[in-house]
Amino acid sequence: MPSRAVKHIVLIKFKDHMTDDQIKEVIDGYRALPGRIEAMKGFEWGTDVSVEGLSEGYTHCFVTTFENIDGRNAYLPHPAHQAYVEKLLPCVDKLLVLDYHPQEVILD
Amino acid sequence: MPSRAVKHIVLIKFKDHMTDDQIKEVIDGYRALPGRIEAMKGFEWGTDVSVEGLSEGYTHCFVTTFENIDGRNAYLPHPAHQAYVEKLLPCVDKLLVLDYHPQEVILD
Repeated sequence: MPSRAVKHIVLIKFKDHMTDDQIKEVIDGYRALPGRIEAMKGFEWGTDVSVEGLSEGYTHCFVTTFENIDGRNAYLPHPAHQAYVEKLLPCVDKLLVLDYHPQEVILD
Repeated sequence: MPSRAVKHIVLIKFKDHMTDDQIKEVIDGYRALPGRIEAMKGFEWGTDVSVEGLSEGYTHCFVTTFENIDGRNAYLPHPAHQAYVEKLLPCVDKLLVLDYHPQEVILD
């Protein structure tokens, strides 16, 4: 169903030695990707502010939107994404990825 | 900064014995919450379609939006939410929660 949007959630726990400046560099690197990868239609990110103690150590969240599954499939092997992943992996302690077709419920 | 929106991500891995009908009942139960909890301004959900093998076994994703941190704080102890959590917990193998203030990047 290539016409359905896909959201791509990435949760990250950075390695302990990562400084705030180094983390900012990683985030800025991701912010630069949509300019180079046509399939990325938008993204948002933020740091964990939950209070339930169920974040499993993940502290950062990136959510990228693709127009459809073809966009997601074009993004993964894209050279700009691959180059980014190579720089990212040594910085992270752990990383979780979950993609989904959002079934939206908009409320008043 | 109570004027900033909060997104509340919940990732779930259901217990193996859960049938599709039972999972649907859990999802429908969550869909009913915004009608009873004023603080919930919208939500979306979906099932994992990632192909990178990094979903750590989580198969379902719920993302609720609150107008601000006060809304999130009103939701957590709300009796309707607490009653839902009590029904949910016996159904899940594991559950991850991460909340964030979305820093949005909207692209052309």
